[in-house]
Amino acid sequence: MANTPETQDSAFVLKPIGRVHSTLTVRHGAPRQGDEGAPDARVEVLPEFLEAVQDLEVGEDIILLTWLHQANRAILKVVPRSDPKNPMTGVFSTRAPDRPNPIGLHRVTVLAIEDGRWLHVRPLEAIDGTPIVDIKPVLNPDPEER
Amino acid sequence: MANTPETQDSAFVLKPIGRVHSTLTVRHGAPRQGDEGAPDARVEVLPEFLEAVQDLEVGEDIILLTWLHQANRAILKVVPRSDPKNPMTGVFSTRAPDRPNPIGLHRVTVLAIEDGRWLHVRPLEAIDGTPIVDIKPVLNPDPEER
Repeated sequence: MANTPETQDSAFVLKPIGRVHSTLTVRHGAPRQGDEGAPDARVEVLPEFLEAVQDLEVGEDIILLTWLHQANRAILKVVPRSDPKNPMTGVFSTRAPDRPNPIGLHRVTVLAIEDGRWLHVRPLEAIDGTPIVDIKPVLNPDPEER
Repeated sequence: MANTPETQDSAFVLKPIGRVHSTLTVRHGAPRQGDEGAPDARVEVLPEFLEAVQDLEVGEDIILLTWLHQANRAILKVVPRSDPKNPMTGVFSTRAPDRPNPIGLHRVTVLAIEDGRWLHVRPLEAIDGTPIVDIKPVLNPDPEER
């Protein structure tokens, strides 16, 4: 863990806290954003994080941070949405998965919770097996946060 | 890099793509959220990521993902906002920096851009020296995304 000025420039290690279970299995078949036809999915939170997840509630909107494990981290510019009409664009102006730190940001609604740590959510464009690295509440529940 | 099913369960390594320069220097003096009196700050994007940041524009709202390098990653429950009236709550229902993967999520407005890679932003509650790990556009610019 980096917690002193001397180590701030070193790398930081994420650990999976859960995993996506989805009918989406192929990256290039996945919708670009959750509201573009993405299915319901289940998020399995690992047993050791049960306490951290226990206050989530059905009906709540949450933000899932994922690790887009199939991304190419050397990419700095992309053609947005793979549409040749779009100009090459710096990845920090896009939501493309290919980026230096391929963290995905997904706002979803909790549809159900089973056994305290299986979250049924909608909509989620991440593919089956995608690691979850964090879950956050939406602070301002009214507007659509994407 | 984890890009095969065999390695999905392993740890993932983040690399800083920039750093916060702020008048906030002490974690416990920092506002809890950007809209609670946080100051303007500067985000230095490292030179090797210049291409990735080049399409950001002044006036745009962006999401900064930070690595909260002073966090305690063993914490699974917290007293929200350190207010003793609040019950102990699972960290995935809070924005507390102490969490298994201490990634901070900050929506800010770009006030100015210098030399292509120094972003003046507002408001930002992250303290001076906080590493930046990703920058994303806000997809739905009208609502307040927090």
